[in-house]
Amino acid sequence: MIQIDHIGIAVRDLSSSNELFRKLLGEAHYKIEAVESEHVTTSFFIIGESKIELLEASDPESPIAKFIEKRGEGIHHIAFEVDDIRAEIERLEGEGFVLINPEPKRGADNKLVAFLHPKSSGGVLVELCQSMK
Amino acid sequence: MIQIDHIGIAVRDLSSSNELFRKLLGEAHYKIEAVESEHVTTSFFIIGESKIELLEASDPESPIAKFIEKRGEGIHHIAFEVDDIRAEIERLEGEGFVLINPEPKRGADNKLVAFLHPKSSGGVLVELCQSMK
Repeated sequence: MIQIDHIGIAVRDLSSSNELFRKLLGEAHYKIEAVESEHVTTSFFIIGESKIELLEASDPESPIAKFIEKRGEGIHHIAFEVDDIRAEIERLEGEGFVLINPEPKRGADNKLVAFLHPKSSGGVLVELCQSMK
Repeated sequence: MIQIDHIGIAVRDLSSSNELFRKLLGEAHYKIEAVESEHVTTSFFIIGESKIELLEASDPESPIAKFIEKRGEGIHHIAFEVDDIRAEIERLEGEGFVLINPEPKRGADNKLVAFLHPKSSGGVLVELCQSMK
């Protein structure tokens, strides 16, 4: 684990939340990206070496729609940048963690990503991500 | 806002969670600190320029005990390092954010801290922190 790549935050309405987080962080988001495989539209803000990723559901079946229905808006996951995602998955499985994605998939921001099941990681939804060259 | 100072994670048992997060992050915590004003015992892990702060309730009245009772273990708050916490509080109040602590107080890790009310910050409990010289 190299650093916090981003914190994912579930929001109801990306447009008003972009404005809210601009006021909070003091700078506007720098991009918006749809991730069809996850049924979300995302926006990204820079903060130090990390990012804040806002996540709006793009349809009612989105995991983000279900999260908001159950818990309301708020912090959804924490993502760590890794050098070699397959090696890290193997290491974590060896330590007893359960992967939602044992095989990494393409995520937002030109990354290979894999999620750990929060039941094996202290209630925290953890994302591993590796930048694609 | 300069960078993510830390992510606060509510845990039931600090000892077993220290072991779990050592396995997750690949390195052990570097300190344990009781914060009596918050009724918590904390431990800290380094990750890049940021930290992970585990929070265990030190009595049943602790906000962490109430959080876990309601939502289970998981991500509790996100803390941003700021240069001048009083100036930042004034800026954020001007933008419409509600401060739980309009006057900063002493927190863990030798910081002056203040929390924003999650109702004004998209369901996210936000902590501002300024290192004390």
